[in-house]
Amino acid sequence: MSPLQAVHNIPEICARLGVTDVVLSPGSRCAPLTIAFARHPDIKVRTVPDERAAAFIGLGLAQAQRRAVALVCTSGTAGLNYAPAVAEAYFQQIPLIVFTADRPPEWIDQLDGQTIRQADLYGAHAKGCLTFPTDTTHPDALWHATRIVSEAIGLAEQFPAGPVQVNVPLREPFYPKQGEELQFGPVRITRELPGRPVLPAAQLQELRETIRNSRRVLVVAGQHRYDADLLQAVRQFAAAHQVPVVGDLIANLHLPAAASYDQRNAPLGRQDVFMAVPEAGLKEALKPELLITFGQSLISKALKLYLRNAKPAQHWHIQPAGAVADTFQSLTKIVRMEPADFFAELNAGQLMSAPQQVVGSVPAGPTDSVEPQGFEPNRGHAIAQDATRVASRPQPIGEPVRLTWAATDAEATTKAAYLRPWQAAENWATGFLRNFMQQPNQLFNEFTAIYRALQQLPDGAALHLANSMAVRYANILGLPAGRSVEVFANRGTSGIDGCTSTAVGAALAQPNRPVVLLTGDVAFFYDRNAFWHNYPTPNLKVLLLNNHAGGIFRLIDGPRQQPELEEFFETRQPLTAENTARDFKLRYLPVSTFAELESALPVFFAAESGAALLEITTDSPTNAEFFEHYRAAVRSSFSNSPR
Amino acid sequence: MSPLQAVHNIPEICARLGVTDVVLSPGSRCAPLTIAFARHPDIKVRTVPDERAAAFIGLGLAQAQRRAVALVCTSGTAGLNYAPAVAEAYFQQIPLIVFTADRPPEWIDQLDGQTIRQADLYGAHAKGCLTFPTDTTHPDALWHATRIVSEAIGLAEQFPAGPVQVNVPLREPFYPKQGEELQFGPVRITRELPGRPVLPAAQLQELRETIRNSRRVLVVAGQHRYDADLLQAVRQFAAAHQVPVVGDLIANLHLPAAASYDQRNAPLGRQDVFMAVPEAGLKEALKPELLITFGQSLISKALKLYLRNAKPAQHWHIQPAGAVADTFQSLTKIVRMEPADFFAELNAGQLMSAPQQVVGSVPAGPTDSVEPQGFEPNRGHAIAQDATRVASRPQPIGEPVRLTWAATDAEATTKAAYLRPWQAAENWATGFLRNFMQQPNQLFNEFTAIYRALQQLPDGAALHLANSMAVRYANILGLPAGRSVEVFANRGTSGIDGCTSTAVGAALAQPNRPVVLLTGDVAFFYDRNAFWHNYPTPNLKVLLLNNHAGGIFRLIDGPRQQPELEEFFETRQPLTAENTARDFKLRYLPVSTFAELESALPVFFAAESGAALLEITTDSPTNAEFFEHYRAAVRSSFSNSPR
Repeated sequence: MSPLQAVHNIPEICARLGVTDVVLSPGSRCAPLTIAFARHPDIKVRTVPDERAAAFIGLGLAQAQRRAVALVCTSGTAGLNYAPAVAEAYFQQIPLIVFTADRPPEWIDQLDGQTIRQADLYGAHAKGCLTFPTDTTHPDALWHATRIVSEAIGLAEQFPAGPVQVNVPLREPFYPKQGEELQFGPVRITRELPGRPVLPAAQLQELRETIRNSRRVLVVAGQHRYDADLLQAVRQFAAAHQVPVVGDLIANLHLPAAASYDQRNAPLGRQDVFMAVPEAGLKEALKPELLITFGQSLISKALKLYLRNAKPAQHWHIQPAGAVADTFQSLTKIVRMEPADFFAELNAGQLMSAPQQVVGSVPAGPTDSVEPQGFEPNRGHAIAQDATRVASRPQPIGEPVRLTWAATDAEATTKAAYLRPWQAAENWATGFLRNFMQQPNQLFNEFTAIYRALQQLPDGAALHLANSMAVRYANILGLPAGRSVEVFANRGTSGIDGCTSTAVGAALAQPNRPVVLLTGDVAFFYDRNAFWHNYPTPNLKVLLLNNHAGGIFRLIDGPRQQPELEEFFETRQPLTAENTARDFKLRYLPVSTFAELESALPVFFAAESGAALLEITTDSPTNAEFFEHYRAAVRSSFSNSPR
Repeated sequence: MSPLQAVHNIPEICARLGVTDVVLSPGSRCAPLTIAFARHPDIKVRTVPDERAAAFIGLGLAQAQRRAVALVCTSGTAGLNYAPAVAEAYFQQIPLIVFTADRPPEWIDQLDGQTIRQADLYGAHAKGCLTFPTDTTHPDALWHATRIVSEAIGLAEQFPAGPVQVNVPLREPFYPKQGEELQFGPVRITRELPGRPVLPAAQLQELRETIRNSRRVLVVAGQHRYDADLLQAVRQFAAAHQVPVVGDLIANLHLPAAASYDQRNAPLGRQDVFMAVPEAGLKEALKPELLITFGQSLISKALKLYLRNAKPAQHWHIQPAGAVADTFQSLTKIVRMEPADFFAELNAGQLMSAPQQVVGSVPAGPTDSVEPQGFEPNRGHAIAQDATRVASRPQPIGEPVRLTWAATDAEATTKAAYLRPWQAAENWATGFLRNFMQQPNQLFNEFTAIYRALQQLPDGAALHLANSMAVRYANILGLPAGRSVEVFANRGTSGIDGCTSTAVGAALAQPNRPVVLLTGDVAFFYDRNAFWHNYPTPNLKVLLLNNHAGGIFRLIDGPRQQPELEEFFETRQPLTAENTARDFKLRYLPVSTFAELESALPVFFAAESGAALLEITTDSPTNAEFFEHYRAAVRSSFSNSPR
């Protein structure tokens, strides 16, 4: 038996447990792993030289395919370059099996090349580190080696999913003899069958009672992958109890549920707009007594701060296992169930104990095509103008928009009295935005450019939102009505370091689906090596907002008032993407006017254009000015309160 | 007092303890650190967006300036992108103070953006992690905060130097009020005065006796920065005891000593050539009884394997503190002294107990200008030829070169009997190489191209050798005679991930010194973000060997016999550096023939050309063939043994 038989068994175990995609980075020490994976008939191996990009590409693949992906790197700092993606996978709960080749233990710290201390390389940001045995000649060691790979995959996939390191010490020789056929296995695998936790009936009944007796129940979803069954359960629950459900774009609540429900109870997503309104009466009307949450992080800082301030009497977080964050400083119950099961159980109880209020027969419509209610278009109200820029400034945005959030008398004593202001605010925000973004005579700016680009998003696309401004702009603007677009963002750690690579991984995973990346220049150039490999991604469309700086710092109070703004916060950078596009054969479409943008967008999104890069060049001060104008408009448009 | 006063004190403490260079990467959470460092009058701040590059630039600055450099980054994965440079600094013993801004402890794991678990982020690859107090309103906390910064700098600089993390939790507000003047201090600093360990006189005398009674004493230097006093002590020791001293390029033994000594005892550096000779008699003649080593890692795998195999009866490693590697599996004594002190003490004893044999008055000559002894130029011996490439193959390299390593009768009972074969082998190798590299009719290949480029290296330059083939080629070829060129390489971890950034840091640190980077295409494109900042480096000269692949894998046995060679080991990549040069305003000189190379080199090295990139495009199979030809020539040229 080859002394490397235990290593040759690794891809066999992976393949049988469903881990069939491997991203590897070239090296010498990892050669036995490289050869074993490359020769296994059921494994798809891709090689990416920059380990930082490789790991994020692996993350993108795993995220899109919804199963674990393996990474393979050589010894030394190679594995450290995985660390940003490993941390993102940890907090975004994406399963990765990280095989780090290592020298055998006796050679650690002996000044041999590419040797660091690889045990537990990711510390608190991996679910575990398993050490492969160095010598597998003893049968027990071979059993150990086999067991470890099954265990690593099981651990990575258990909820909450995440990265697991398998450190593999390897002695020379690394290479099979000339003409040697590798044997894969035989191996015995251990398959893990995850159970789904249920609560005792009495406890469920208690929760149902609490909900039934609460006038102001609010559901807030954090980042969550699209799950039609979960959405069905949530919508049914919302309809039955007249409960508002709120989520950012990355909660993917805007996508279709498994069955169709009354669109009047569609989830809400404009909180970044209406929460910015300085209107105490509305804020009071939106306050929950009972907050129910599921999923991971929120983008909307306004909603987060509002809920922290609102201090609901009860906050239940629904999560089957793992640590739970007290994001709103109000957490009272942690319900150890799958959110889909939780809402389904509540609905089942509802069915037994109360008439079903769900309208199940309404045909599926566009997910946010609800007509604005309580919204009136603007009528030419002038705001203070900067005399030097009068000509270029957008048209005044009209009379303060009126909004009525007071419940009708009929509603006053029902749960609808609480749903109404949420829906009214949402509808007002939808109308306000549509109106605001379509004003004529704007200077070219990235906020409007994104709005227009998103209007043409292909149906069925995966939309990847880079940190830091891209994801915030998109969360304000939302998606156009009726578009089934799943939304992704690296919000586990909110880094800019691998947003492009993650989108590249998604594009590789789903060659027939358009993958659209919306990103800024700092994130884009940071992670240019995302493209540095030999695998085509004709379905990848990169919308690059180039303001030649980390423009976010001009948009937030604090840095923009500092003399260090341009050198140390924005960090002005002169690159355009032209040379990058040339290097990596991306169809390059540079635009810097609305007219250019409008004519470029259809070409950019056309499938036959292949991998394309639309570079939207704007001026950071203009963006800041326009965004400030938007914020002022939100504030002033909402000034006419009905109470 | 500002609640951020403790943070504003940090740059004051740094400046007073000599840490005046800061590399920061933009972010929001780190704003108080950014502003404090940027406004301090004695601190030089540079901002680099990609933290991976930023950290290696900091490492290059610290390496060149020989004092600690501070890094500043924001919370989240920013600090993880430092990890490769932190590990390199740890193993190369370079002091870095890594300030990682963090959220306050109560917000960790609460799903806030850019929040990971930053305590002890670098695990086993930092000398320590100190946590800055979150709230410094209590006077004890302010004392704690001040103390921590002094401690971190002291710890980083203590031998063995290395990286130290200071994690700084920060609560909002981050920004000073409009018009607020920052106060720096007053602070009390704690300065550490390092002692130098000495051995008791009796023990030193015992070591002297052992050396005096050993016929075969060999000194081997690992990676070590240039130190004229150390070189003086080593050369004096070598001359007194007729001891061969061997070191790779990165040992910097080729540079001038503090005083001039007999060039006949100059350190040797051609071990990569003569150790490749399959000649048992010579190998026997070179075997040490007593091996004395200092410094860090060796490049020469041939020397390393030889010494492991030679198993000297004694191996002493000279290192004042810290863990010691048993690189040759022979370690018997660890001498806790500075190498310069150790050799000086032995010399002092020598002066007292034996006639001084050092010739101190010979004028300083070129460091490797020794005329080959025992070397005869080749005379047209034909080696087996590949019929398909006869025309392009270099000229045959002549009769087997003769070498006499036997000691003369007069020497036979003296220590010179052991020095002689080492010197003979070195001289033979020098002559062989000169002869071999100058053969006509070579196909254009990177080995010869480097040889020619190194001939024109400007005197006084800093030469940075990238992993992986660049450093190996250069170590074989050595430097041309008489060139005072200090040599650097990231051999702490031997990664390719930050070689360019390290050279950029060196160029920023010493604007009046040419900094020459010799690198390959994989290392170069991996670390392109080294150039992505706004600081000019007109003294930086990048010699790029582009074979469109990780060509090393075609040069080593194992991968080159595998069907996976091109896709999974070499990882063929199509980029040229033209677009990169355009992006970063580097003078771009592409060459692919010897004639182009010869005419480009003077332009490339000219100071007035500014930052320049000479791209040497070669073909990986041709390189492999030529290098194999070189290896065959080494083997066959040495076949005529005198014993």
